[in-house]
Amino acid sequence: MVGLEISKKSDSDSIKNNRLSDAVINLDQGDPTAFQEYWMKMKDRCTVVIPGWDMMSYFSNTTDVCWFLEPELAKAIKALHGAIGNAATEERYIVVGTGSSQLCQAALFALSSLSEVKPVSIVAATPYYSTYVEEASYLQSKLYKWEGDARTFDKNGPYIEMMTSPNNPDGTIREPVVNRSGKVIHDFAYYWPHYTPITRRQDHDLMLFTFSKITGHAGSRIGWALVKDIEVAKRMVQYLTINSIGVSKESQTRATTILNEITKICRNKSESFFEYGFEKMKSRWERLREVVDSGDTFTLPNYPQAFCNFFGKSISNSPAFAWLGCKEERDLGSLLKENKVLTRGGDRCGCDKKYVRVSMLSRDDDFDIFLHRLATIKDLKCIKP
Amino acid sequence: MVGLEISKKSDSDSIKNNRLSDAVINLDQGDPTAFQEYWMKMKDRCTVVIPGWDMMSYFSNTTDVCWFLEPELAKAIKALHGAIGNAATEERYIVVGTGSSQLCQAALFALSSLSEVKPVSIVAATPYYSTYVEEASYLQSKLYKWEGDARTFDKNGPYIEMMTSPNNPDGTIREPVVNRSGKVIHDFAYYWPHYTPITRRQDHDLMLFTFSKITGHAGSRIGWALVKDIEVAKRMVQYLTINSIGVSKESQTRATTILNEITKICRNKSESFFEYGFEKMKSRWERLREVVDSGDTFTLPNYPQAFCNFFGKSISNSPAFAWLGCKEERDLGSLLKENKVLTRGGDRCGCDKKYVRVSMLSRDDDFDIFLHRLATIKDLKCIKP
Ligand SMILES: Cc1ncc(COP(=O)(O)O)c(C=O)c1O
Ligand SMILES: Cc1ncc(COP(=O)(O)O)c(C=O)c1O
Repeated sequence: MVGLEISKKSDSDSIKNNRLSDAVINLDQGDPTAFQEYWMKMKDRCTVVIPGWDMMSYFSNTTDVCWFLEPELAKAIKALHGAIGNAATEERYIVVGTGSSQLCQAALFALSSLSEVKPVSIVAATPYYSTYVEEASYLQSKLYKWEGDARTFDKNGPYIEMMTSPNNPDGTIREPVVNRSGKVIHDFAYYWPHYTPITRRQDHDLMLFTFSKITGHAGSRIGWALVKDIEVAKRMVQYLTINSIGVSKESQTRATTILNEITKICRNKSESFFEYGFEKMKSRWERLREVVDSGDTFTLPNYPQAFCNFFGKSISNSPAFAWLGCKEERDLGSLLKENKVLTRGGDRCGCDKKYVRVSMLSRDDDFDIFLHRLATIKDLKCIKP
Repeated sequence: MVGLEISKKSDSDSIKNNRLSDAVINLDQGDPTAFQEYWMKMKDRCTVVIPGWDMMSYFSNTTDVCWFLEPELAKAIKALHGAIGNAATEERYIVVGTGSSQLCQAALFALSSLSEVKPVSIVAATPYYSTYVEEASYLQSKLYKWEGDARTFDKNGPYIEMMTSPNNPDGTIREPVVNRSGKVIHDFAYYWPHYTPITRRQDHDLMLFTFSKITGHAGSRIGWALVKDIEVAKRMVQYLTINSIGVSKESQTRATTILNEITKICRNKSESFFEYGFEKMKSRWERLREVVDSGDTFTLPNYPQAFCNFFGKSISNSPAFAWLGCKEERDLGSLLKENKVLTRGGDRCGCDKKYVRVSMLSRDDDFDIFLHRLATIKDLKCIKP
């Protein structure tokens, strides 16, 4: 039985922490360690035991298009989407990846190698998840080419739009913006009820999800794609076969156990991971907004409320990242760095340096220190050019 | 306590199997399921238990160049190489990968992106591991270009030679052949005493190893690189960061447990995995040679004996693949396929179709059926154009 007590450190506690610790706080990456306390309370309910002789083969199911996908994981994924109501899984192929990062690249390969004209342009509306730039550029492929902001994209020819909703870094709900007859990769890493209202059952050609951002198990490196077109699925599997001959069976097994458990208890108020996660994120956002609103230095986006089909009530977004801005023109990333808080500069997301992306998924201690340091900057009114 | 009884099915057993089973035998991939019987006998000695709250972070050790490498795995790798004496690990960076497949591509990225002139030529002496062609070609990178057989390579400019020893597919002991001032990736997937005499402690700039082919745990997708140059190691880590944000922690933990165990008992005659593996491979090779030598249809390479520093005696190679040839000019892959045995055609390895690569690492049943079908082809003297 998991209680939903969210640890809200008192101010004096966090000040003590801050005094004790002069350490740099890294909120650049979105390492989802915030949820570990939930799993600690679950004790050994999701423990997996793997004997030495198990899972030795490269193959999981030679009759599946995705031959390295464990059939039990496929079932667990379908059951979870069914219970949450966030995505359609019927008449789709599931492709498992070493995180959704690998799947994003598998999708770029699949869609571009099936295109008659190459290179295919890759675009995303700013501010975008900065990693897309790296994923589309590092190997200098002749198949595709990073073309930057989708809003100003005006080239002819085939394109792929990376569409992230809720968006990383700014938490907004998005639709594709190019709207010609190109391809869209729907990255739904954060389309789960602890981050955002589930307003519809998504039903697109190519949707990406990641275990990392649902339950916080980023170390397992498990993501999946729901793919309508068998030719696209086959090419993605070809990519994963050449790139890494499939995906860790140990991680797939553990993900199966954990996803099955959160599905089973998702309607149990006192135990549900999503209830816990929702309260946790909401409380962090309230505390952050309190600090920001109590001064005249920083900005945060405002999110409209919407009816969440999963919770059956109207809720707001509590994104995994805060898109923190600065009212004056200033390099906010450098300012925060001077104050020993590492964040991702807005310039890396195709935007201005007066914005930074701050992870909201750190451990409680780090989050407390972050709020305290933010409050200090604000108090000092040190925002001078 | 693991007994070293190698199951040698009697002829009548395998004929019965063959009659019972009309199934296609897949010896195309090198799926190392042969060793599972050893792990069954080990019972729960290498069982790993992973609680739900463990291994959640993307990070393993932020002070290591390879920040996603579990420190315990690094120790286990060093201890194993130390005990076997097959490779130097001092003054080297360890980079872990999702199989050595991913590391091979990380190495191509690292070496070519550090080269002033691009694309860098990628070569390998025929017959080569066919996957290198795919790895170097599928993304149509501008960084490197597959140029085929290393022996006929005469282009100027930077190159990377893929050097596999013992070689996949033909089991020969190799040295680089281009011998200009290019880079060499030493793929030592099979440089372990159950496959080949350990004649020296390898000590090169960039060496690849894989968990898959040591103990047979291919499903875990764990490989590692031993890298001398920190700049190369850093670029490999950059590749792995973008490609999949590191490597499954569950797999790393399980590999740690299993590698530590085989190291601990490697000198214990009755328990050692390497003693077991050596006897197993030797016995399979003897049985295969018996079938081949009893007719005038097929050929196999001959391997010289050499003194193995690990076993302290002179032994021969027992490669993980048989490089089976056909005395007449003929498409051997098609012939075997007609007889319901799938193999990899020599043409895919840059050679003639009169050769095929046959996995020697299948389960006992499949190996028995393979030998039986081979004997049948030979008896029928059906090698007619
Ligand atoms: C929008 C988005 N997509 C994909 C990923 C990749 O996640 P993973 O590779 O851990 O599955 C992330 C991680 O931060 C993300 O924010
Ligand atoms: C020579 C060689 N290198 C690398 C690999 C890749 O192994 P893995 O990706 O399973 O580590 C193989 C597998 O067959 C191989 O034969």
